[in-house]
Amino acid sequence: MTPQGASNHLALRIDGARLWQSLMELARIGATPKGGVCRLALSDLDRQARDLAVRWAQDAGMTIQVDQIGNIFMRRAGRNRQLPPVMTGSHIDTQPTGGKFDGNYGVLAGLEVVRTLNDQGVQTEAPIEVAIWTNEEGSRFVPVMMGSGVFARAIPLEQAYAATDVNAVTVKDELARIGYIGAEVPGEHPVGAYFEAHIEQGPVLEDHDQVIGVVTGVLGIRWYNCTVTGMEAHAGPTPMVLRKDALQVATRLMQEVVACAHRHPPHGRGTVGMVQVHPNSRNVIPGRVTFSIDLRNASDALCLAMDADIRAVAERLSVQTGLPIHIEPVSEYNAQAFDAGCIEAITGAATRMGYSHMPVVSGAGHDAVYMARLAPTGMIFIPCKDGISHNETEDATPEHVTAGANVLLHAMLARAGC
Amino acid sequence: MTPQGASNHLALRIDGARLWQSLMELARIGATPKGGVCRLALSDLDRQARDLAVRWAQDAGMTIQVDQIGNIFMRRAGRNRQLPPVMTGSHIDTQPTGGKFDGNYGVLAGLEVVRTLNDQGVQTEAPIEVAIWTNEEGSRFVPVMMGSGVFARAIPLEQAYAATDVNAVTVKDELARIGYIGAEVPGEHPVGAYFEAHIEQGPVLEDHDQVIGVVTGVLGIRWYNCTVTGMEAHAGPTPMVLRKDALQVATRLMQEVVACAHRHPPHGRGTVGMVQVHPNSRNVIPGRVTFSIDLRNASDALCLAMDADIRAVAERLSVQTGLPIHIEPVSEYNAQAFDAGCIEAITGAATRMGYSHMPVVSGAGHDAVYMARLAPTGMIFIPCKDGISHNETEDATPEHVTAGANVLLHAMLARAGC
Repeated sequence: MTPQGASNHLALRIDGARLWQSLMELARIGATPKGGVCRLALSDLDRQARDLAVRWAQDAGMTIQVDQIGNIFMRRAGRNRQLPPVMTGSHIDTQPTGGKFDGNYGVLAGLEVVRTLNDQGVQTEAPIEVAIWTNEEGSRFVPVMMGSGVFARAIPLEQAYAATDVNAVTVKDELARIGYIGAEVPGEHPVGAYFEAHIEQGPVLEDHDQVIGVVTGVLGIRWYNCTVTGMEAHAGPTPMVLRKDALQVATRLMQEVVACAHRHPPHGRGTVGMVQVHPNSRNVIPGRVTFSIDLRNASDALCLAMDADIRAVAERLSVQTGLPIHIEPVSEYNAQAFDAGCIEAITGAATRMGYSHMPVVSGAGHDAVYMARLAPTGMIFIPCKDGISHNETEDATPEHVTAGANVLLHAMLARAGC
Repeated sequence: MTPQGASNHLALRIDGARLWQSLMELARIGATPKGGVCRLALSDLDRQARDLAVRWAQDAGMTIQVDQIGNIFMRRAGRNRQLPPVMTGSHIDTQPTGGKFDGNYGVLAGLEVVRTLNDQGVQTEAPIEVAIWTNEEGSRFVPVMMGSGVFARAIPLEQAYAATDVNAVTVKDELARIGYIGAEVPGEHPVGAYFEAHIEQGPVLEDHDQVIGVVTGVLGIRWYNCTVTGMEAHAGPTPMVLRKDALQVATRLMQEVVACAHRHPPHGRGTVGMVQVHPNSRNVIPGRVTFSIDLRNASDALCLAMDADIRAVAERLSVQTGLPIHIEPVSEYNAQAFDAGCIEAITGAATRMGYSHMPVVSGAGHDAVYMARLAPTGMIFIPCKDGISHNETEDATPEHVTAGANVLLHAMLARAGC
């Protein structure tokens, strides 16, 4: 590699129009009248989309491997066959009322990186791979992030196989039916580094008018169900002082869920999304209220601090009001910091190309979270319109789509060597 | 009437055991396994109960009149045929999971007053009447308090006739079927005064350890639906400061509904009974919350003041948060003060017999509310266990049942003259 070559490589840019066209073409598979995509995991539409992506990869000279959970690895050889691949990827299954970009962008940005390297005849030291992870969304089969979770050995293969949809059809049967059960044992596939480009699915970049989000990590999550028990009574004949109004106590705690997030800045998040009032009748004082609590923060220690905070508040409130408050954990996901070297590769690429960028955290889960357990990992966010995702109106601009893929290209080149 | 006679009359007491037995016998019609009563208006069971009450009244020498909405007037003649009757009564239809006492107690206490007067050979100046009002509960046919409402000309007869149950059966057809469409035009029936004995359906008497509640009036009611509109977004990727969380604003207003009641003592009541969160998903920030508001107070002026208060709070909250808040009136019932003379007759009777008593307001509607538009009216409350009503576990003690009927007897005697 000559200095001339290196400087040539630094000038490399992906073909934004080609990438956009591929995104739009893939989005036709499962397109909804409102402009979104409904392409549930392991459906016929998922198979069509997989087939198309594989054909495009083969057209780009890549070789294809599929593992037992249906993860697809599309490989462009490197100069050095001893090196593990520098991998990128994401998923192409969608929510029932999903958009064109969530997941699909990460896969097709990876494909565009390869096409660009092909166009320019650039050979990398390490191989380049583009992964398509099975069932990231979890809409049809739970758990979410199934393919990468099995790959990272966080989810046992047999458990994933046994997962059923609402019609009691299993993952294993559907994988076989669509022809995507491979031979490779999940996880027995070396990975040198992993990058994932994704729409932000939140409003931060748009709010800060930044093109690139350099993701420093993924927030930890704690989910709970909280029940406040009072005494059901008629709204008319029961004076205020004799009430045991479960909703009045519950709403104070709901306020505290948000206050707790504000007490743990800058990344603390507290959400009550689901509320069930019993008996839910206009003239009956609620006897019982159950609601969800979703706490998130950037480290497990901060998540634990928020857990302790909200439990203490609930305890005080229960003592004050005399109403029992029960907080039951539902599930938890640990926080995951990304690799400093990958973060630096992304930051450096964005800086050199002059894209405005900022460090961000990911509040939602991604396949990259599981990959971070196996290899140095980083993520690149681009803005999406109004922060909206998991919605047929999900949108991103061609400029941002191009910028993210350019950053992906150079971060991968930095890591793969050329 | 001699002074001797007057003092004899003051010593009159109803037969508590007989009243209790009648209550239990009537409660067998529509008895539920859990000890309650399900006797929906104008059902076969309602007919059976009406037939039994009419037979008991006829056995007590009373004459029967039925009006066009099926209200039954059971009359014991007075010495002076020119005087309008002193009336008491209530209803014998129940909630689907109702109890033995709600309504039934008022009718049978009136019957027991007549039986007692018969036993002692007491003749009153004015006639005594016991009314059974049609469809007070409104469980099968709306509106509630239909019979007394038509009688008071607050509800047009044809509108009441046209009301249908869930099977599209009309009130008129059911009245005809069970044989209780009378000839009398509703309201064309003079009333000298009206008393109604009823279980409290609230916890105040029990809480104050009092036997008799002297009801000074019925609270006015204002019902609203309130909608707070935010922006639905993912709980993970959306930082606290960029949220438009409809539930966080709604819960502040729900707190204010209760605070508003406390700002308008002693009778102000504020209840949020019904809440609907959209989309009601654990990890989605609520985009829209709709909830009911029930405001009550002892006068229409106070109800209006509470209305203005909560609207002003909502307006400030909307300006503060930037989220639209829409408050839509659903229905309203004016407050109704009872007659000072009737209140005095009840208070005097309770005092003379040594029953502990206190003034109370009724938070719920009763037939007496419509009757108060037509004649001097008063109500007598007795405690019910834990304040529970509209429930199969509704309960009252024989002692309280007896006490309330004794107060009814003497309040009616004071008004009817003897």
